[in-house]
Amino acid sequence: MLYLVGLGLSDETDITVKGLEVVKKASRVYLEAYTSILLVDKSVLETYYGRPVIVADREMVESDSDAILHDAQNVDVAFLVVGDPFGATTHTDIVLRARELHIPVRTVPNASIMSGIGAAGLQLYNFGQTVSMVFFTDNWRPASFYDRIKENRDIGLHTLVLLDIKVKEQSLENMARGRKIYEPPRYMTVGTCAQQMLEVEEEKGLGAYGPESLAIGAARVGGKTEKFVAGTLKELCEADDVLGPPLHSLVLLGRRTHELEHDFVREFAVDRENWDRIWKAEYQGKH
Amino acid sequence: MLYLVGLGLSDETDITVKGLEVVKKASRVYLEAYTSILLVDKSVLETYYGRPVIVADREMVESDSDAILHDAQNVDVAFLVVGDPFGATTHTDIVLRARELHIPVRTVPNASIMSGIGAAGLQLYNFGQTVSMVFFTDNWRPASFYDRIKENRDIGLHTLVLLDIKVKEQSLENMARGRKIYEPPRYMTVGTCAQQMLEVEEEKGLGAYGPESLAIGAARVGGKTEKFVAGTLKELCEADDVLGPPLHSLVLLGRRTHELEHDFVREFAVDRENWDRIWKAEYQGKH
Repeated sequence: MLYLVGLGLSDETDITVKGLEVVKKASRVYLEAYTSILLVDKSVLETYYGRPVIVADREMVESDSDAILHDAQNVDVAFLVVGDPFGATTHTDIVLRARELHIPVRTVPNASIMSGIGAAGLQLYNFGQTVSMVFFTDNWRPASFYDRIKENRDIGLHTLVLLDIKVKEQSLENMARGRKIYEPPRYMTVGTCAQQMLEVEEEKGLGAYGPESLAIGAARVGGKTEKFVAGTLKELCEADDVLGPPLHSLVLLGRRTHELEHDFVREFAVDRENWDRIWKAEYQGKH
Repeated sequence: MLYLVGLGLSDETDITVKGLEVVKKASRVYLEAYTSILLVDKSVLETYYGRPVIVADREMVESDSDAILHDAQNVDVAFLVVGDPFGATTHTDIVLRARELHIPVRTVPNASIMSGIGAAGLQLYNFGQTVSMVFFTDNWRPASFYDRIKENRDIGLHTLVLLDIKVKEQSLENMARGRKIYEPPRYMTVGTCAQQMLEVEEEKGLGAYGPESLAIGAARVGGKTEKFVAGTLKELCEADDVLGPPLHSLVLLGRRTHELEHDFVREFAVDRENWDRIWKAEYQGKH
């Protein structure tokens, strides 16, 4: 049996009791470690589980999944995923491959950032499609997120923006020379995300949002040091110090924001006077 | 401290290790029991936790939340919610009230149907806003879901439809006479939902969807007997026997369905030939 086990969002105790039982009994335990991370190290998990954990990087999961699935017709294999197992696209692949090999699959769900973000106080049913933001480079500035945000904003919905993480990435030079030397991990901050969003709006000019649009920066959702900062996109460009260490996410508010949501969120405002002014002018009663 | 603890989707072992520690140590433990249910009874939870659990019905949570929050400045109170604590609107209220009373609040996230539905094989970032379907009566047929589904469909997105549950409801007669006699619980099935959706399309006639639109019926998501059935809305009207007992949910596919999603979902089709025919004509390559 292949078990896909969600680990939740922050530390080793966010696994479910059901998931922990699977981990303790499985023949092999893999940790998918490139679409998201916990706020604790692998060694903490190994101590907690009382057994070794094999890190599965992108290369292994995407090009060598048969190694992970080896003999899973006969023994139990646990594949651990931060958040919920179906939060990231890539895990659909491994299930399809398991089906081809006639390996039964069971999933142990857990909190995902897509539901955990509800802790910011916005109602989950008022969110439109989720988008991803990657680190821009000089010649690679993918902006497909923009049209999707605009679609959400046009019908008044909130947008969750998931921020890039770069784990085990090679520099172009090392890649060209075939050297398996990896860069230190990088995690996008709310500040970088807000900045890139404003740059793209500047380029496209369709008014999907602007410097005065209201948003929430979220850090370490579900963890003990969870932190939310509410402000305009312009204000959030400077909010990284207040938010602290990764992981970060951002939510852009839709105009279909209810009073109850607003009451909850304004507590997090960096500048409550500014927040209230924009709320009254642009959002209140607009749904 | 007020702890909002998510219980996940199916049974007593879906609680996180962190959540279980909170429950074992809290002075009082409440179970919110009207926005969703686990697939096991309260007595199973009490045995598992080794302590009594107080059922909090809608009346208590909405009109008497101060009883729940009593003395939570000094002692720990655990408020258990099926799924994730922020999945339902109503829990924002209790947090706002706790803030007024200067009671610190901590959340223990868990799987929600809004992320757990990813197990059906559709990518979560391709979902639009979530809608709810309530039981129609002769003179109450709320159809606000229709416009929202149409908004999602117009931009190619999937829609998760959450189905009504009626717990501790009074008949009109008993309510009028002030008799606290409650009807047996009722849980909407995928069949009823699909039927009501088609009735409303018949009335509105705006073509948000139709009898041949592709959808997925989901039952007991996250549980051992989890079951998915894929088919047209017309086919899903008759799929309740295959799906089995509650809880049910429904997903209406958007045209922005990728091949990988399709490969995953067609395994669940009641009539694969029909499914493939409609997929090729109406969905494939349309995103």
